[in-house]
Amino acid sequence: MPTLNTKYAVGIDFGGTFNKLALVNDEGHMLARRRVATDTITGRAAWMEAMATAITQMCTEVDPTGPLPLEGIGIGVPGFVDFSRGYIHQLPNVPGWDGVALASLMEEHVQQRVRVDNDVNVMAHGECTFGAGRTYQHAVFLTLGTGVGGGLIINNQLYRGAYSMGGEIGHMTINLYDDPSPIGRGVLEQYVGNQRIVERALRYLDAGESSHLLDQCDGDRSRVDPLVIEKAAEAGDAMCIRVYDEVAECLAAALSSVTYLLQPEAFIIGGGVGQSGPILYDPLQRHLEARLNPHFAKRVVIKKAALGNDAGVLGGAALWLAP
Amino acid sequence: MPTLNTKYAVGIDFGGTFNKLALVNDEGHMLARRRVATDTITGRAAWMEAMATAITQMCTEVDPTGPLPLEGIGIGVPGFVDFSRGYIHQLPNVPGWDGVALASLMEEHVQQRVRVDNDVNVMAHGECTFGAGRTYQHAVFLTLGTGVGGGLIINNQLYRGAYSMGGEIGHMTINLYDDPSPIGRGVLEQYVGNQRIVERALRYLDAGESSHLLDQCDGDRSRVDPLVIEKAAEAGDAMCIRVYDEVAECLAAALSSVTYLLQPEAFIIGGGVGQSGPILYDPLQRHLEARLNPHFAKRVVIKKAALGNDAGVLGGAALWLAP
Repeated sequence: MPTLNTKYAVGIDFGGTFNKLALVNDEGHMLARRRVATDTITGRAAWMEAMATAITQMCTEVDPTGPLPLEGIGIGVPGFVDFSRGYIHQLPNVPGWDGVALASLMEEHVQQRVRVDNDVNVMAHGECTFGAGRTYQHAVFLTLGTGVGGGLIINNQLYRGAYSMGGEIGHMTINLYDDPSPIGRGVLEQYVGNQRIVERALRYLDAGESSHLLDQCDGDRSRVDPLVIEKAAEAGDAMCIRVYDEVAECLAAALSSVTYLLQPEAFIIGGGVGQSGPILYDPLQRHLEARLNPHFAKRVVIKKAALGNDAGVLGGAALWLAP
Repeated sequence: MPTLNTKYAVGIDFGGTFNKLALVNDEGHMLARRRVATDTITGRAAWMEAMATAITQMCTEVDPTGPLPLEGIGIGVPGFVDFSRGYIHQLPNVPGWDGVALASLMEEHVQQRVRVDNDVNVMAHGECTFGAGRTYQHAVFLTLGTGVGGGLIINNQLYRGAYSMGGEIGHMTINLYDDPSPIGRGVLEQYVGNQRIVERALRYLDAGESSHLLDQCDGDRSRVDPLVIEKAAEAGDAMCIRVYDEVAECLAAALSSVTYLLQPEAFIIGGGVGQSGPILYDPLQRHLEARLNPHFAKRVVIKKAALGNDAGVLGGAALWLAP
């Protein structure tokens, strides 16, 4: 039963294989959830229809006497977006969505107001509305995973830059003379993306460094991932501790640049590697302090993201509940 | 004679040896100016008195029948400031001003409202109100001189960060594995500060590279400065062209980071080296494009600052005329 004066919105976390949806109230509670496989859906009309059905089901679930009034629907998509128009420029990893005016198409289809933003921006907004960043006016969100993404909260609002593509922390240069790569030249993601962490560890193994890393995965190199390396490091493996220290140093170089430029109150760190323990965060703090003037070092805080995989749906809803 | 509805303010560019003052109207015209030597003034009370006298003189000059109503006085100081309180934390190069509540002290003394900000922030605000950045809502100002400073215009306003010390572009890391130095470790200023440009050229000379650089200064190494190197480069000296190309590459690395993070519409570049010609700006444009994804590269503009040494006084006044 909906409460008077409570506001509701739907957040959609758009993925290549499935979309996650949640009906959220303005206190950040998820009242209903859906997970819709999208890799089996052909065409945008069928996609719209699947979303409309899921949204209607969730509304009915929360208020059987309905219709439940929604503030709107907020969608986070993995790619370049013009937020002001709800227009997708390009989704590099999801074919069929380049140049799509998603917000207006969907508004027509579901008869609700729709906003579309980059997925990491949406997660940043979720964490800074309902999660680890909710007490800050100025915060920078990072996600450490396959790629490295970012989102900026400035004056309590998501700041997207002049053409709504900003926040790309993973593309910041930390080592300008490094070899060019498809990702960029000497940019953060080249050093702290999941695969790069694995490559670093395997490179040290191949160079003959002593390590118990492969014991963590029955000697199967193909199973080495950042979590396996973290576990070995936590068990005291010197090589793996060094890998995380070096990853932390690269991250600290970028965070020091962001701190000198924007002086946020806090960094909120999400994504798989963001869930690491002290093996990442202790050296990160140390390297960051070493790179910052005390006026800056003493004023900035590093926090783990709190919403996990729900940051996307909560942030999508927050595009309406706390715009 | 003052015009009805015109607004007036005074800008003060605070320096270690002299202060520059201007009485400015809301169209950015400087109606009166003063230059007050401060190295001969002892004590803050005498400093206040000298400023008060200069301000009164300027007001009388503009409106002899006065008193001319001022919106307020804006002061740019070279150091760390808490803008919200008008409080100077520290002026690294001007003794005697650390921990001074300058705005409230001066408000009492001159009976006018006073704002105090970091000098580069003030220049950024001046350029983006009355100068090369006036058409942009989102712009980043840089000054290339002895040091490298910056100021951010976000949503048409100066953005100072959470504790009003942001914009320190010169401290952004571009080469994390460089040797530590007093300025920082692998930070922009280590590569493009005036003295670093000179050192780079002299290092190549000492390594025996062929160059006509010293012809530009009668063989006197102590007279080599960035302008001398620029002139030699413009005259076709390959070594000096290379120095500027390398400086441009370092600068491009930092500007690409800022672009990926903030996606400004424009960079406005001031300071002595900022006044260089194509010998700096051509390679800067080329290196920046090489480092940016086309979505970003095609949308960002590099412009020379337009206000020269007046950016400080105009920006100080703009703290009141376009807050």
